[in-house]
Amino acid sequence: MSETGRGDALRARYGAETSLDIAWNEVIAGLLAHRTVRAFRSDPLPTGALEALVAAAQSAPSSSNLQTWSVVAVEDAATKRRLSEVARGQRHVAEAPLVLVWLADLSRLGAIGRDRDRPTDGLDYLEMLMVGVVDAALAAQNATVALESLGLGSVYIGALRNDPEAVAALLGLPPNVLAVFGHCVGYPDPERPASVKPRLPQEVVLHRGRYDPALATGAIEAYDAAMMAFQAGQRMPQVGWGDAALERVRGPDSLSGRDRLREILARRGFGLK
Amino acid sequence: MSETGRGDALRARYGAETSLDIAWNEVIAGLLAHRTVRAFRSDPLPTGALEALVAAAQSAPSSSNLQTWSVVAVEDAATKRRLSEVARGQRHVAEAPLVLVWLADLSRLGAIGRDRDRPTDGLDYLEMLMVGVVDAALAAQNATVALESLGLGSVYIGALRNDPEAVAALLGLPPNVLAVFGHCVGYPDPERPASVKPRLPQEVVLHRGRYDPALATGAIEAYDAAMMAFQAGQRMPQVGWGDAALERVRGPDSLSGRDRLREILARRGFGLK
Repeated sequence: MSETGRGDALRARYGAETSLDIAWNEVIAGLLAHRTVRAFRSDPLPTGALEALVAAAQSAPSSSNLQTWSVVAVEDAATKRRLSEVARGQRHVAEAPLVLVWLADLSRLGAIGRDRDRPTDGLDYLEMLMVGVVDAALAAQNATVALESLGLGSVYIGALRNDPEAVAALLGLPPNVLAVFGHCVGYPDPERPASVKPRLPQEVVLHRGRYDPALATGAIEAYDAAMMAFQAGQRMPQVGWGDAALERVRGPDSLSGRDRLREILARRGFGLK
Repeated sequence: MSETGRGDALRARYGAETSLDIAWNEVIAGLLAHRTVRAFRSDPLPTGALEALVAAAQSAPSSSNLQTWSVVAVEDAATKRRLSEVARGQRHVAEAPLVLVWLADLSRLGAIGRDRDRPTDGLDYLEMLMVGVVDAALAAQNATVALESLGLGSVYIGALRNDPEAVAALLGLPPNVLAVFGHCVGYPDPERPASVKPRLPQEVVLHRGRYDPALATGAIEAYDAAMMAFQAGQRMPQVGWGDAALERVRGPDSLSGRDRLREILARRGFGLK
């Protein structure tokens, strides 16, 4: 793979010239080329694609091999439409041929415990929710790498957490199962192509040896400028990054209902001790 | 890539013959070949590898592009030794040339808010811890895919959550930052090779259309047998899967101190509302 490929990939990923010198091969090129796809062709996935995504997901690490995750594959139009409503009307949830819903699943171990007459009181702790959420996210990301290798595209839908009870009712989720996020999958619509979104300069997220708590204001301002240039190119409002991110975490009323997550999880059977 | 490659990969991943017909290419073959590496050569990573892993990690999706994660790269022998002690003496933490510590980082947005004189009360909710944990896990898994493509191997260390305060003190983590897990990285020791670990049959984790709450006892018993055969081949105690998993979640005293996670997070500045 050529040096030009590497330079272009880094420029797109950071929205700026960078002096980064990174190891390079086709897999890394593929990872750096990731883009969020929200516009899909209507044709279904090829035969064996779903099964390949799930096999890839199962190949991700799992905490103590507990495999505390599951996934629901939704192809039915009515169910996708109702999931889209939970996600504040995001059209791609209704339009994608496949919507995966990645679950932190503590119910399976609970059921095995009942079946074998053994206690599972450890499931009632916040730690185990964390294990389930991490397991589900690692699995989903392997599925994303796999689907992109097949020419498919995707977008995660955190907005399913706006109303976990509606999602649970829709998908028949038992207690102790949380839909961590949705995942729209399909062939990207070539008429509405997606772009690589720039990220923070590497030195902002990578700490060497110890965490450096000093706020890298210069690097963050440079990134705000890079995001404004990106937004201009996308004909999006030029809001930059920092102020938009701060708006998102302003207070409980900016969390789209997710300020109730703890209360809802408690109702859904999670002990959260 | 040959049919034989696909069949062998599926047999290793599920520890059994399977009738699965999955889409196949080199990337998917690489994902399915994942194995947990705990025995490393002592030589350091090649130039540009760490930077490639972080660029790959940054290329993973991030919730609303908030980028609520950071990573600390630890190469110092004394720090690795102390991290190894937190992880109940896991030797590979001290022996790996590089230990990455993946952080759910809500402190950066808090600092930007203070810098710009804007409120960030939304950070005080369980939802935002979830966002940080998911962001960190997605990032880490992309790093894992990247490092394996470079011939490196790794293992995640959830046991850093046994004592988040010790890890925070060691790495200088500010409030509102949690070490979600560690990640030992290096060249696999060819004299102590790792094997692909079988996972649950695909039908146990994949639900079509709706969640099926019926416990697939037959499939789980078959998997118990597959794990016993795997453990025999590895000269490990033949405990199977279900009983070992149940032992892990038996109660608070089987969580290696992580039953205190909620209390520790509260002390570490997380609102968890």
